Amino acid sequence: MKTLLLSQSDLHEIVSRVGVDRMMDELIARLRTALIAFDTAETEIPVRAGFHYEAPVPGLIEWMPLLAKNESVLMKIVGYHPDSPDKLRLPTILSTLSRYDPTSGHLLALVDGTFLTAMRTGAASALASQALAKPDSATIGLIGCGAQAVTQLHALNRMFPVTDVLIHDVDPTALKTFRDRVANFSSNGFRIHPTPVSELVASSDILCVATSVPIGAGPVFAAQETRPWLHVNAVGSDFPGKIECPRDLLLRSFVCPDVPGQAMREGECQQLTAAQIGADFATLIKDAESYEALRLRTSVFDSTGWALEDQVALSLLLEIAQAFDLGTDIQIENVSMDPRSPYEFLSPVCGAPRLRQIG
Amino acid sequence: MKTLLLSQSDLHEIVSRVGVDRMMDELIARLRTALIAFDTAETEIPVRAGFHYEAPVPGLIEWMPLLAKNESVLMKIVGYHPDSPDKLRLPTILSTLSRYDPTSGHLLALVDGTFLTAMRTGAASALASQALAKPDSATIGLIGCGAQAVTQLHALNRMFPVTDVLIHDVDPTALKTFRDRVANFSSNGFRIHPTPVSELVASSDILCVATSVPIGAGPVFAAQETRPWLHVNAVGSDFPGKIECPRDLLLRSFVCPDVPGQAMREGECQQLTAAQIGADFATLIKDAESYEALRLRTSVFDSTGWALEDQVALSLLLEIAQAFDLGTDIQIENVSMDPRSPYEFLSPVCGAPRLRQIG
Repeated sequence: MKTLLLSQSDLHEIVSRVGVDRMMDELIARLRTALIAFDTAETEIPVRAGFHYEAPVPGLIEWMPLLAKNESVLMKIVGYHPDSPDKLRLPTILSTLSRYDPTSGHLLALVDGTFLTAMRTGAASALASQALAKPDSATIGLIGCGAQAVTQLHALNRMFPVTDVLIHDVDPTALKTFRDRVANFSSNGFRIHPTPVSELVASSDILCVATSVPIGAGPVFAAQETRPWLHVNAVGSDFPGKIECPRDLLLRSFVCPDVPGQAMREGECQQLTAAQIGADFATLIKDAESYEALRLRTSVFDSTGWALEDQVALSLLLEIAQAFDLGTDIQIENVSMDPRSPYEFLSPVCGAPRLRQIG
Repeated sequence: MKTLLLSQSDLHEIVSRVGVDRMMDELIARLRTALIAFDTAETEIPVRAGFHYEAPVPGLIEWMPLLAKNESVLMKIVGYHPDSPDKLRLPTILSTLSRYDPTSGHLLALVDGTFLTAMRTGAASALASQALAKPDSATIGLIGCGAQAVTQLHALNRMFPVTDVLIHDVDPTALKTFRDRVANFSSNGFRIHPTPVSELVASSDILCVATSVPIGAGPVFAAQETRPWLHVNAVGSDFPGKIECPRDLLLRSFVCPDVPGQAMREGECQQLTAAQIGADFATLIKDAESYEALRLRTSVFDSTGWALEDQVALSLLLEIAQAFDLGTDIQIENVSMDPRSPYEFLSPVCGAPRLRQIG
């Protein structure tokens, strides 16, 4: 009864073989299908919980479980440690995904969730933008140019005729290296312009905000004039007290939260009452046509992160791994010939290969 | 940034080298130390949560997180599927344990939790019994003779001068194979007697109840006369509606829950009001002397399972693995040279080994 383990090398091999553009396209398509099919009678997604701490460094480790009834259980563990890039040369968001068999509790697979989190967050923004942004959106603004900004741009670039990318980050290094970091997916040769925040906000058709702004220090841009059709993907808020968008913009916009309860606790929706919040993500995508008029108005996708997105990404990755026969099968759980005999392996005569008795 | 993975073979090698008796002794000693040191200001243990379902089979998959502040995060995932032994030849309880670094969210280690769950549940019962049972207890009763019964007996046998083991199980196979399954730890040659339940309950000094009785079908033994000093370790109740002990016995006994809130929801304490419940496990062990008089009275340890026990067991296992240099280090998380560059590995020139671009 083996567990499939995908190493970082396996992941790289998979993405290299499939191609990162095709993988993003596939992820967007499957996420759309999953959102349209989403039914709480079939898929149980408890509210995310976690440990929040200030020591040894400010951060959190959260667990995001999902039950696809009769099929599988997902457990995403995700760490958010904003000091990591500078202090440890590690991503702010580190994650692993594991899948369990609800027939037995067996761990079926364990894979990296860091890469998939970045990809699926991009895919979610692309779908929300497709529903709420002007179809000919060509100017993308990015406030916060870390790992998440790379996949935001990649996903939007798959969906919109992007010509200009306006970027801003409080960290000059992030700003300087951005061009190189987005060189590995196809583009029609968009131009990248470091841009002061207010000009960036004023000129964007679609704006993605993905910062590590500290609790209480937001928003990261001020209330100001925008294009009448501006669509914002607010992906950085994932913590009580952390916000990125000015309330003024939210109040005059259609605000779509991915997970309403969570968004009201951790996302931009902290700044709103329930009555000020629009349709949730699944409803928006299920019923996209009836929201088409909103493409001419300002809108905000409050993306706090949803295990459904991880489930779709994990399924895609595992399918490809299986097709390419990649990964390593490892026996982790202690399973005896007689399931009631935990010490069976210590027997002088038993079905399992004999181990030396040293101690 | 590697993750230490212990396979089943590594686990077997560790237990074989150390010796299962020494391992149980060490686990009991460390669990005592951890209970005495337990401080909610240092160790955060949220209430266990999980998915409970009736299809594809009746069962549950639960997550049991623990934060040792400044040190580590534990995530135990545990499945309980009572049909597994007969239908799948798998243990009723399957589990994995993983440890994360609160500095970064990095997955430090992944190991089997099936074996450790059985061991630590035994160790917990041994400690509770040491505090609450007569020190010369020689007759152990076991209702339910599955995997957990093996480690219950093992742990008690390390602590008490066991001469007679009275066993009962509704499954004749479990009863028949029990002798062989407890042949792999040291004993002073206790005798094993299949015994009708009422006689078993009447004659035991210490009784361990570890059954898969369905919800609503308990208790598994009736209100009846017992030895005045009977101590019961009730380890099977772990689900709302599942109970093993008759309320009558609980009412006339000192009842010690491992986790009061959880025990009132899932354990024997479901049958009691808060006022009818005694000191919790940590308090009992911290202050064992002041509870000594209870050894002459009936007592019940309501063991629903606590992540603190898993944390102690995991630490022990990882220390031994490190000392023996066992296990495999695998790079799972996608970590680039530039932590802000998730697609770095796709670059023609980058620090990581180059991968072919096929797709």
